[in-house]
Amino acid sequence: MGRVTARHRVVRIRDGAVSERPDTLVVEEPLEIRLNGRRLAVTMRTPGDDFALAAGFLVSEGVVAAAGEVAHIRYCAGATEDGANTYNVVDVRLAEGVPVPEVSLERNVYTTSSCGLCGKASLEAVRTTARWRPEQGSAAPLHLTPAVLSGLPDTLRSAQRVFDRTGGLHAAALFSPAGELLDLREDVGRHNAVDKLVGRALREGLLPLAGAVLMVSGRASFELVQKAVMAGIPALAAVSAPSSLAVELADETGMTLVGFLRGSSMNVYAGAGRLEPLPVQSPAP
Amino acid sequence: MGRVTARHRVVRIRDGAVSERPDTLVVEEPLEIRLNGRRLAVTMRTPGDDFALAAGFLVSEGVVAAAGEVAHIRYCAGATEDGANTYNVVDVRLAEGVPVPEVSLERNVYTTSSCGLCGKASLEAVRTTARWRPEQGSAAPLHLTPAVLSGLPDTLRSAQRVFDRTGGLHAAALFSPAGELLDLREDVGRHNAVDKLVGRALREGLLPLAGAVLMVSGRASFELVQKAVMAGIPALAAVSAPSSLAVELADETGMTLVGFLRGSSMNVYAGAGRLEPLPVQSPAP
Repeated sequence: MGRVTARHRVVRIRDGAVSERPDTLVVEEPLEIRLNGRRLAVTMRTPGDDFALAAGFLVSEGVVAAAGEVAHIRYCAGATEDGANTYNVVDVRLAEGVPVPEVSLERNVYTTSSCGLCGKASLEAVRTTARWRPEQGSAAPLHLTPAVLSGLPDTLRSAQRVFDRTGGLHAAALFSPAGELLDLREDVGRHNAVDKLVGRALREGLLPLAGAVLMVSGRASFELVQKAVMAGIPALAAVSAPSSLAVELADETGMTLVGFLRGSSMNVYAGAGRLEPLPVQSPAP
Repeated sequence: MGRVTARHRVVRIRDGAVSERPDTLVVEEPLEIRLNGRRLAVTMRTPGDDFALAAGFLVSEGVVAAAGEVAHIRYCAGATEDGANTYNVVDVRLAEGVPVPEVSLERNVYTTSSCGLCGKASLEAVRTTARWRPEQGSAAPLHLTPAVLSGLPDTLRSAQRVFDRTGGLHAAALFSPAGELLDLREDVGRHNAVDKLVGRALREGLLPLAGAVLMVSGRASFELVQKAVMAGIPALAAVSAPSSLAVELADETGMTLVGFLRGSSMNVYAGAGRLEPLPVQSPAP
């Protein structure tokens, strides 16, 4: 269990020169998440932090929102025919009194259960499931500066240990409004990396993450904004582009969404109020 | 329906200069895929080629493998409360006599149904579902050269029309062994882009794609290799890293898997035989 990288012989071609050598790969394995013994979801993930991944997934789905709502999380032995523990099946038991949701996930293959039949229904589903509004429980409103945001990608990148060896991992990190790295997780799936962050925060009693900024490598999809909303995170920054539905969800929930965050350049797609005062110039005629 | 991009006002920050201007976003909307009227899956996708996406998804899941196995594909009206057609729900009717599989997808949230409880079981599931072996039905074995592979990323990139405007789309393309672009699809989800390619090929009677190379932007996951196997594609090339399970599946099914394909550099993770003769040098002692 817990192997994050694997070795594999590879034929390397560089400008016509061919060599054979061992290479380091990032490990991808399925994880089955059970809720009170019932199969709920399978995700392809990088092993490690599996309990946090399961807990964070349940936060994203609106099942739990506080550490006390989880009784325990365990690996299931005997899940395979030979009865061995593959460390690829975890069972989450809810605490007594916590309602076991009628989680009908059968219609979901790629995406989460909070997704509706159209963009509007998807937004609505998140809005009705979310337990917090942005900055609920926070002493002061979150305030961000372009200077702090500019520093996040470099901090993220330099803290990505496994990426350096494999080039094959997504990263997600939590930062303080001053740009201090609070936690970072890496995974073959960006959504898993976020679930691992949120699950750890849940288990440490830190939800809602009202004073934190979530930064992700790559793009910002609807699903990532949804996960941030469900964890009470008021700001999401991404290295690449957001989708239309990601921007709409951020807009509707009052989240700050920053994309194309590269060096001192960035686009603010929603919630620019948290960066004010900004000297906005009108575009040239 | 079919809107691929959307406009949104954005606050743009470049080296301290702040401006507000309209920006182009890639559209993300849910698509529900029904099989013979029964809900099967929801995927977050970029609208367009929805019938191909549904058909390709069913190829990936091992439900169909020939155009004649599909009777028709239609948008469902009346899927929402007000009875309007959202163009986000498609129903695939199988041809008479084609067995409707007992597709129990309830355990799947993130991933496809071909995924088992451990890596080994996942590989086994694909192996038992696949209808073809690599190059089955092909007149001659596929042969590739590093020179041809080197040219694929540039061709892919220059054919990506929507990416140029949004920076937010994944791409997947089919190439001939000579490096000729056969088809290209773009989507917020890389797996959707591949399903769209495969679905179009199915509907045109081109499966198995025994003489084609699949090229994807970004990384090569287990799921992408699985989709290639199910479509009978013998070679997959990716701009970035493959995962451990992607390499294992390629190895086991006899597929050629190339990663980190950038300029004249590439790593061949599996099936290097299709590139021979290569003047492999032993690593320096």
